[in-house]
Amino acid sequence: MRVLGVDPGLTRCGVGVVEGVPGRPCTLVAYYVIYTDPQDELPTRLLHLDRNLTDLVAEHSPDSVAVERVFSQHNVRTVMGTAQAGAVAVLTAARAGLPVQMYTPSEVKAAVTGSGQADKAQMTAMVTRLLRLSEPPRPADAADALALAICHVWRGGTRAKVAAAARKGGYR
Amino acid sequence: MRVLGVDPGLTRCGVGVVEGVPGRPCTLVAYYVIYTDPQDELPTRLLHLDRNLTDLVAEHSPDSVAVERVFSQHNVRTVMGTAQAGAVAVLTAARAGLPVQMYTPSEVKAAVTGSGQADKAQMTAMVTRLLRLSEPPRPADAADALALAICHVWRGGTRAKVAAAARKGGYR
Repeated sequence: MRVLGVDPGLTRCGVGVVEGVPGRPCTLVAYYVIYTDPQDELPTRLLHLDRNLTDLVAEHSPDSVAVERVFSQHNVRTVMGTAQAGAVAVLTAARAGLPVQMYTPSEVKAAVTGSGQADKAQMTAMVTRLLRLSEPPRPADAADALALAICHVWRGGTRAKVAAAARKGGYR
Repeated sequence: MRVLGVDPGLTRCGVGVVEGVPGRPCTLVAYYVIYTDPQDELPTRLLHLDRNLTDLVAEHSPDSVAVERVFSQHNVRTVMGTAQAGAVAVLTAARAGLPVQMYTPSEVKAAVTGSGQADKAQMTAMVTRLLRLSEPPRPADAADALALAICHVWRGGTRAKVAAAARKGGYR
């Protein structure tokens, strides 16, 4: 199962691709950060993001895409940029015919570190360990995108296991 | 000059198409409201919005697109849906190679009614009068989209006039 995770942001958008099966360590395929210039107009920035995401989806042919679900933050301006970038990510995946799953930051933290309150450093450390990397992925946006992808592989695993258990038990 | 205006919303997205030249009354071409089902997942909703907007842009071949610029509101959930729908509208226009201009609600109100504090009823009344319609466009999302399009024709007119004056004066 190959998953492309997106940590949406208008200025920096993290993208992480991992491969794995539920209950086993995932393997790193690639990670990227797509930058857009804050000096550019919004149409130019969204178009740049859309083209780069479309290219990465085509290049890596993931089975599904995981995108961080945006929640209210203190800075409304930041929330808006994140919501706009997230919408582009979701739409790009949907246009490619891929299933899209959204996770809140605390769901991802809980899946990867065991705690929904984990900080950035702890998340990066766990992603580095789980993917058996010699160095932590930088910048943090890339680590967050990889964490999202890992979370989705494992959660997909949970669902697959439940489905398997249901079949085994003779009921669906 | 044909302008397609978009009043972005995830549940109801207003679209208005007008034709006109600066300093003269505009003519109504068409207006629509694109609905998406709140019960559907976000990818389905954004895809539905993208497809409908893409079809309307192809059908009406506007010279440019005007989209309402989203600002902070009290309800963060509403802001997010509006930001997501707005991002889809901006991206759809940019992908079609069209220039996109964004206006704040008060810029549109000031352009159409002369007051940045005009209420919904006043806006609808002015749009009805300016387009010489026998009945007010319903629902209000459609009237707002038409107001955006009228605002853009007139503002484009201002810029065109400035450019013309500059050429006339022998400097650019």
